[in-house]
Amino acid sequence: MRIAIDAMGGDAAPDINIQGAIEAAKEWGDVHIILVGDEKRLAPALNGAPSNLSIQHASEVVLPDDEPVRAVRRKKDASMVVAGRLVKEGAADAMISAGNTGALMATGLLVVGRMEGIERPALAPMIPTMDGKGTLALDLGANMDASPQHLMQYAIMGSIYRQKVHGLERPRVGLLNVGTEEMKGNELTKAAFPLLSEAPIHFVGNVESRDVLQGNCDVLVCDGFVGNILLKTMEGTAGTIFSVLKQEFTSSLLSKLAAAVLKPGLSRFKKKLDYKEHGGAPLLGLNGLVLKSHGSSDAKAIKNAVRQAREALKNDLVVSISSEISRK
Amino acid sequence: MRIAIDAMGGDAAPDINIQGAIEAAKEWGDVHIILVGDEKRLAPALNGAPSNLSIQHASEVVLPDDEPVRAVRRKKDASMVVAGRLVKEGAADAMISAGNTGALMATGLLVVGRMEGIERPALAPMIPTMDGKGTLALDLGANMDASPQHLMQYAIMGSIYRQKVHGLERPRVGLLNVGTEEMKGNELTKAAFPLLSEAPIHFVGNVESRDVLQGNCDVLVCDGFVGNILLKTMEGTAGTIFSVLKQEFTSSLLSKLAAAVLKPGLSRFKKKLDYKEHGGAPLLGLNGLVLKSHGSSDAKAIKNAVRQAREALKNDLVVSISSEISRK
Repeated sequence: MRIAIDAMGGDAAPDINIQGAIEAAKEWGDVHIILVGDEKRLAPALNGAPSNLSIQHASEVVLPDDEPVRAVRRKKDASMVVAGRLVKEGAADAMISAGNTGALMATGLLVVGRMEGIERPALAPMIPTMDGKGTLALDLGANMDASPQHLMQYAIMGSIYRQKVHGLERPRVGLLNVGTEEMKGNELTKAAFPLLSEAPIHFVGNVESRDVLQGNCDVLVCDGFVGNILLKTMEGTAGTIFSVLKQEFTSSLLSKLAAAVLKPGLSRFKKKLDYKEHGGAPLLGLNGLVLKSHGSSDAKAIKNAVRQAREALKNDLVVSISSEISRK
Repeated sequence: MRIAIDAMGGDAAPDINIQGAIEAAKEWGDVHIILVGDEKRLAPALNGAPSNLSIQHASEVVLPDDEPVRAVRRKKDASMVVAGRLVKEGAADAMISAGNTGALMATGLLVVGRMEGIERPALAPMIPTMDGKGTLALDLGANMDASPQHLMQYAIMGSIYRQKVHGLERPRVGLLNVGTEEMKGNELTKAAFPLLSEAPIHFVGNVESRDVLQGNCDVLVCDGFVGNILLKTMEGTAGTIFSVLKQEFTSSLLSKLAAAVLKPGLSRFKKKLDYKEHGGAPLLGLNGLVLKSHGSSDAKAIKNAVRQAREALKNDLVVSISSEISRK
C-alpha cells in the first residue's frame, strides 16, 4: 500500500515529517511511503533511507494562514495538493498532512473528491476520555451546519471507522444533545434521532456534553459548529485549570515540594487528556483516505498516522463506507 | 417593592426558602417579601419574623420531574404559579423560585407573559470567569433554536441587565462562535453578526468558547442549545479534573500530606468556578421580573436572589428593556 505524506505541512516540517516517514518505512515493509515536497530539501535527508520510501517533487507549499479554497485552487503544485492528486489518480492509496486544516479539507473536496452518496465529508478526530479509549467525534468543523441526513451519514461513517481501524465490534454511537431523553434537543437533533435509530449502527441515544469525558460512547455525532464549541470548551476549561494548578504549585517552597509529590500522577492524567496522543483525524466521506495529523505533530505522531492509514487500508475502510452508504 | 418567593421550590424547600426570606426581610427594610406556599407549613416558622414578610397561601407544588407546561396549566394553585400570578396582577414586582426550571420558564411565558416586542424570553445565568467577575450568558436553555433576530434581542436584554443590576457602564457583548473573525461560524451566527454590530450595545465581536473562562466579555450571546453544550462541557470537564485530583491527592500518605498544603488555594479556585456563587438567573423578556435560583440554593442564595431582584427593581430593569426593545 502506498501512503503519500505531505512533507511540507506542519509546524516542524519538513524535518519531523521526514523523520516520521523514515521510521514508518522501517517499521512496515508492506507500506511504500511517498514523501511529497521540495526535492532539493528532501533528497539530502534521505541518504540511507529504506527503499520503500520515495520522493515526489512539489514546488509550492500551502501556508498556515492561506485562505483554504483559494490556496488549493491556485497552488496547484503545493505538496498537499500534489499528495491529494496522487490519491485521486490512484498513484497513492492514502495521504497524510499536518498542514492547514481548512486547506486539507478543500484538498479532500476539490482534489480527492467526495464519495458518491455522501453529501458532506466530515472531520473526525478522537476526543480523549477518562478511560483512555477516546471517542471519535464528527463532524468537528468540516461543515458548520448539518442536516439530520448529514448527521446520519456521520454516524455510519464513524461507526465503520471505529470497526475497521480500531477493531471495535459494535461501536456505541451517541448523538450529542442537551439531555438524554429522546425528545430533547433542537430541531436538528430531534429530527436526527429517528434517523440514527434506524441506521445500521449501534445507536445508544442522546449523550450529554458533561458526560463525554466519561467515555459513554465510541462515536459522538454532532454538527461542526457544536462539535467545535464542545472541543474548544474542553480545551479551554482544562487549560485554565492546569494553569491555575501550576500557579498554586509554584506559589511557595512548601507548595513546590508538595507539587513534586503529586506531579507524576497529574502528568499521566494530563497526557490522557491530550488529544494529540490519539493520532490523526480522518476526513471521512472522500474517494480515498485523507488523514489530518496535528499541526504540532512530532515524528512519532507522523509515524502513528501512517499506522492508522495502514490499518484503514488493510481493512478496506473506504470501500466499506462506500458500500454501506450506497445501500441506503 | 414587593418580591414574591416560591417557598416550595428547590431541594431544601421550604425551610431554607423561609430562612433566606427572613434574612432578606431583615436586611432590606424597603422590600416586602411575600412567601408563597402552604400556609400551614409556613406560618409556624414565621413567628417573630419581621413585619415586611407575609404569606400568600398556595395549596399545590410543582415537582422537579413534572412536565413543565402541563404542570403550569393544571396546577393552578401551585406556589410557583401563584407567585407568577402575583407579578402578572401587579400584586408583586418580582418573583423568585428555586423550583423546576422548565416549569418556571412556562410560568414566565404562560402566567407572567411575554414583553411586547420580545419574541423569545431568555434564561440568563452567570458563567464564572477566572477574574471572578463572571459573564452573563443567554440564552441558556429557554429556547433550543434561535433566529438572528432573537440573538440580537438577547444581546440587548443582557446588556441592559448588566448595566442596571451589576452597574457596568458599557458591558462588552460577545457572540459565541468558532473563531473570532467576522465571517466565521454557522448560518445563524453569520447572520446575527451584522445585527449585533448595529444594535445599541458595545459589541466586541465573536468570542471563542475556549476563551470564555478568561472573562473576555460581560454578556455572551448564543442559542439555547449551544449555550447548554457550553455550560455542561465546562461543568463536566472541571468536575472530571477535580475528581481525578481528589484521587491523586488521596492515593498515598505522602500525597495526602502534599494535598493538605495545596488545598486552600485549590478550594478558592474551585469556589470561583462554582456558578452557584453567582446568584440567580433572570428570565429576561417577560412582563415582570422572574429570577431562577439554583435548585440546590441555601438560605444565602435565596437572600442573594432577593438582593438581585431589589437592584433590578430599583433600577427599572424591565421598563428599560421594554423601552429599548420598542424603539427598534
